[in-house]
Amino acid sequence: MTAKESSHAIIWSLPATMLALSVALAGTAVLAESEPTSAVSSSDALLQVPDADYRRDWAFLGSFSVLADDPEAGAKEFHVVYTKREDLDAYRKTGKFPDGAVLVKDVFATKTEAFTTGTASYADTLVGRFVMVKDAANKFAGSSPLWGDGWGWAFYEGTETRKTVTTDYRQDCLSCHEPARDQDFTYVQGYPILKN
Amino acid sequence: MTAKESSHAIIWSLPATMLALSVALAGTAVLAESEPTSAVSSSDALLQVPDADYRRDWAFLGSFSVLADDPEAGAKEFHVVYTKREDLDAYRKTGKFPDGAVLVKDVFATKTEAFTTGTASYADTLVGRFVMVKDAANKFAGSSPLWGDGWGWAFYEGTETRKTVTTDYRQDCLSCHEPARDQDFTYVQGYPILKN
Repeated sequence: MTAKESSHAIIWSLPATMLALSVALAGTAVLAESEPTSAVSSSDALLQVPDADYRRDWAFLGSFSVLADDPEAGAKEFHVVYTKREDLDAYRKTGKFPDGAVLVKDVFATKTEAFTTGTASYADTLVGRFVMVKDAANKFAGSSPLWGDGWGWAFYEGTETRKTVTTDYRQDCLSCHEPARDQDFTYVQGYPILKN
Repeated sequence: MTAKESSHAIIWSLPATMLALSVALAGTAVLAESEPTSAVSSSDALLQVPDADYRRDWAFLGSFSVLADDPEAGAKEFHVVYTKREDLDAYRKTGKFPDGAVLVKDVFATKTEAFTTGTASYADTLVGRFVMVKDAANKFAGSSPLWGDGWGWAFYEGTETRKTVTTDYRQDCLSCHEPARDQDFTYVQGYPILKN
């Protein structure tokens, strides 16, 4: 399994400045029935990597360390997941991510060192980012192959923020997220902050 | 090495409501020369786990996954480090943590699962927390055995927030932080956000 394949695993976002457009975009989705091209670009634009400094301004949900093929080498990847603080608050109250919630997952290649505390790994170079946007009523489902099952789904390689390599979430994303279907496709067991 | 021993490694904080008192406490430190008992409790109080919901409201700096004694078991611990956003901003500008900056490090025991993405570990139960408070001018050095080398240092077991088990930072903390002396004792290589 390559690093890129192994990174197709968990999570998603949209530019902060575009979040306010979600109501307008709901209207665009209706237009989609007669103007599919325009609707596709509008809904997929919601899945771009946010312009916001999400690592500073959003809440960190949790991280996963993925064991190297040679386990003694420590972790080969770190997956680091963020969401907006208001969406964290909503989850803490209701037990689910609200409509429009954005999850961004940084996928980092790691470095591993022999520290005084033992062999430990940490995030180093950005491999890419996953963006998921909650679509509670499936209003964008069918607007493009990136929307369905209550979410929009997209992966961006490296530092790319606009052009996703995801062509169909069913093939590119569900293969890894299907096991978490009964958790709304999210690996929430890795996010202790949700229980606070 | 036990889990507890191995967790004596990296990082630190103080209640948000007390941060505003730092100027006043500088005055208290002067008093320390004649009233050491009162001064010790004042400076050490700065090292308590913050009342703030730092996991929600502060910035996540980075995390370390510590490899299990049996490497195939994945990570045995996650160390997760937070600081205030204004202190992150200051670091990005100056390359160092400003006076009064607070670092809190959650130490979690992990769970490890065979995910579709591979064997991966994530934070589970809180083992304890490290708090470090920057004392750029060493104004609290000597006020108690928890202050020196430009920082205040304390560890709290489990969910304890007030009563530290640290009795002397030189013995309890420096053994793990000495290798990072030329980085002001912090393992900043694990915090990619500082480079943004």
